[in-house]
Amino acid sequence: MRYFSILAFTLSLLISINVNGQTDESALKTIYSTSLTNGKSYEWLDYLSNEIGGRLSGSKNAELAVQYTKAELEKLGLDKVWLQPVMVPKWERGEKEEAFYLIGNQKKNVNICALGGSIATNENGLQANIVEVHDFEELEKLGRENIEGKIVFYNRPMQADLISTFNAYGGCVNQRYAGAMEAAKYGAIGVIVRSMNLRQDNFPHTGSMSYGDLPVEQRIPSAAISTNDANVLSDALKSNKDLQFYFKQNCKQYEDVPSYNVIGEITGSEYPNEYIIVGGHLDSWDLGDGAHDDGAGVVQSMDVLRLLKESGITPKRSIRVVLFMNEENGLRGATEYARVAKENNENHIFALESDAGGFTPRGFSFSANDTNFNQVLGWQLLFKPYLIHYFEQGGSGADVGPLKTETNVVAGLRPDSQRYFDHHHASNDTFEHVNKRELELGAATMTALVYLYDRYGVNPITKETEIKN
Amino acid sequence: MRYFSILAFTLSLLISINVNGQTDESALKTIYSTSLTNGKSYEWLDYLSNEIGGRLSGSKNAELAVQYTKAELEKLGLDKVWLQPVMVPKWERGEKEEAFYLIGNQKKNVNICALGGSIATNENGLQANIVEVHDFEELEKLGRENIEGKIVFYNRPMQADLISTFNAYGGCVNQRYAGAMEAAKYGAIGVIVRSMNLRQDNFPHTGSMSYGDLPVEQRIPSAAISTNDANVLSDALKSNKDLQFYFKQNCKQYEDVPSYNVIGEITGSEYPNEYIIVGGHLDSWDLGDGAHDDGAGVVQSMDVLRLLKESGITPKRSIRVVLFMNEENGLRGATEYARVAKENNENHIFALESDAGGFTPRGFSFSANDTNFNQVLGWQLLFKPYLIHYFEQGGSGADVGPLKTETNVVAGLRPDSQRYFDHHHASNDTFEHVNKRELELGAATMTALVYLYDRYGVNPITKETEIKN
Repeated sequence: MRYFSILAFTLSLLISINVNGQTDESALKTIYSTSLTNGKSYEWLDYLSNEIGGRLSGSKNAELAVQYTKAELEKLGLDKVWLQPVMVPKWERGEKEEAFYLIGNQKKNVNICALGGSIATNENGLQANIVEVHDFEELEKLGRENIEGKIVFYNRPMQADLISTFNAYGGCVNQRYAGAMEAAKYGAIGVIVRSMNLRQDNFPHTGSMSYGDLPVEQRIPSAAISTNDANVLSDALKSNKDLQFYFKQNCKQYEDVPSYNVIGEITGSEYPNEYIIVGGHLDSWDLGDGAHDDGAGVVQSMDVLRLLKESGITPKRSIRVVLFMNEENGLRGATEYARVAKENNENHIFALESDAGGFTPRGFSFSANDTNFNQVLGWQLLFKPYLIHYFEQGGSGADVGPLKTETNVVAGLRPDSQRYFDHHHASNDTFEHVNKRELELGAATMTALVYLYDRYGVNPITKETEIKN
Repeated sequence: MRYFSILAFTLSLLISINVNGQTDESALKTIYSTSLTNGKSYEWLDYLSNEIGGRLSGSKNAELAVQYTKAELEKLGLDKVWLQPVMVPKWERGEKEEAFYLIGNQKKNVNICALGGSIATNENGLQANIVEVHDFEELEKLGRENIEGKIVFYNRPMQADLISTFNAYGGCVNQRYAGAMEAAKYGAIGVIVRSMNLRQDNFPHTGSMSYGDLPVEQRIPSAAISTNDANVLSDALKSNKDLQFYFKQNCKQYEDVPSYNVIGEITGSEYPNEYIIVGGHLDSWDLGDGAHDDGAGVVQSMDVLRLLKESGITPKRSIRVVLFMNEENGLRGATEYARVAKENNENHIFALESDAGGFTPRGFSFSANDTNFNQVLGWQLLFKPYLIHYFEQGGSGADVGPLKTETNVVAGLRPDSQRYFDHHHASNDTFEHVNKRELELGAATMTALVYLYDRYGVNPITKETEIKN
């Protein structure tokens, strides 16, 4: 243990001399300058958001996004660009939802949207009493006698005093994902869920839901309601327990359809069999144009390879950009990419995803063993001039998760999270809410980390990766 | 020297034990939670922005803002609330500016706004040839023979590859501030300045300018042009050197008028003669509603005192909120506050300003000697859970600068700066561009630092401040 510590310490000194040398410092300076003065991500995002728009898996727009990004990657002079086929689910919202509640003859319209994967109501809509609950325990306590034949209204708000809004999301999202399957067990006939949004506004936020193993005949429609309307409804219920709630939605699940991951590669000059990948997901929800989720991650990842080239860096290892299809409602693209990588025995030493919005980057979270994580910590000072300070273990990205092994590193870019859920899965996730500089700083930050992993590899203490080659 | 170092080291250990104890950790937790769940800054900002609006010194709105903030402070149960009289300049924009350029008969309208403090054109406007320059050296080289009788167009953009947008601003703002006085020396008859904005858009950005010692009869009108139009004009000039530029503005400088700083105080329970102040400036430019500059700083500063109370903290030292009048075009409020503080022999140990927008806080910059700065560095870890990581020497805030002494500390809140100059001094500096959580995190971060200075004082090694009492 002691010997190991001394060794690790000595090696970490050596690493720190390496990476703090002029070369790395100046490489990062070039990368950031190039992104901020000659970045391409904002232009690409403009096209993806404004010329194509929302890109739900299986949609025409998703197909256009595949074609567009492939064509753009082909212009970059990479060594390879290809499409990786994958079957994806296809769900369509249909015509706009309607909802209101009635107190006597007084009708109050509210803003809802069907959750992704939900069934429709019947064509006349659904009207019933509505019961407010805050979690599944409360549901269980109420039991079938209070739930049967009614609509369940999940109204647990995101916790405002958590600094990471993703933690607040994590504490609420089971209402959206599993709310219908849980409520159906007690005979509920529909579900309305408070939008996963920390702000008070009128936007309903969609997102994936699941019926689990629930037989088809027991499935019930579920929709999200805006935070403003959730509060209004909750208030109304306080004085009118028996108010009637009505909603109508026209969504439909179709058979799976073919689609693609889009992949580009710069083949490594020294270790071509070691892969470093950067990615985001090409699909988005349908309500907005998917600029933050995850157009930003897509264009930043594309720009990583371009910025390496523009900065005059010739990668030693193979660098791939992977634009995953179907993160939002199936993760089929990520699953398929990992399956093929395994089948081909490809050694993915490092995988990085950007899927937390195009906001000012603050750092990264890593899924890595201690040795690998310590290696990263040795690089922290290089990022200080760019105000990148967050290097923490725990979590990466949904699409790169399946690539995790015991010895590699998977990571997620961590932008400032405060405004993310203002836009997430809602009709205001649109291009004008992405700031060009913030987006470009994210692309540069990803490129810088990819540059360091390319230069030093992963796990330099055991030299395992070099021995393998 | 050695003795001092050991002493400093020992004391820093003691300090770190103190401040890392449960009390400080839990105090900060309470402060942040209170701000995020029960903050008042957003509500105040809504009123200041949407019910009052732009608050240029000497205007009716500035007067309304004085009355409103005084009344709100009076509701907080502070020990004292008062107005500090100060004479301020009064400049009015008058009716909206007009500008275009002519190539032959073809007229292209451009977006301009008069710079604060500029004279008007005559009532028919001003039309002349226009010469593009990028700095005063270029102006000097061109000389009187190329400048006389023409309009000078300063078109040096903000440098995009600087990470701090304030540094980029610092590298350009002399064009706006001194452009007219420099151009007038060579016989120019008007000045058009590229807006201090890193984004390409159509908003002209105003801001202060000065004629220095230039005699009244030599003064020339000067205006800002939007970044989009600056590029369009520059392109047009490349192929049409002799194009005519026209602009008309109707602004006017009046006699100074009376106004006020608004001040509230919680008197210290142990060291009432040691003052800690937090502040922002109540005045703003007239084009937007001044939400970021500096409505945010005003309401955050007000909330610092309220959050201390709500968090159950009884300050040992006297804590003041100071809402300074006339930062934008005179700094009269800050100058008067510092003059009175000196006259009254008030010992201001720490002064903090928020005047860099209501964006996610990243940390602080300090104007402090090394001993005092080291004290702050000892507190850094307490801020880590709140992602506050930026603690640097250099710069504070315009309004607290005059309070600097050899032994005290003045500081500025440093929010994320990427979007600040998208809005700064332009008609899109409005309430909807401020995010509630980001604003509240800033208020909490300020409150946390004020709490620590209240608890530990400044310069604990020499104990100078305690001996004085």
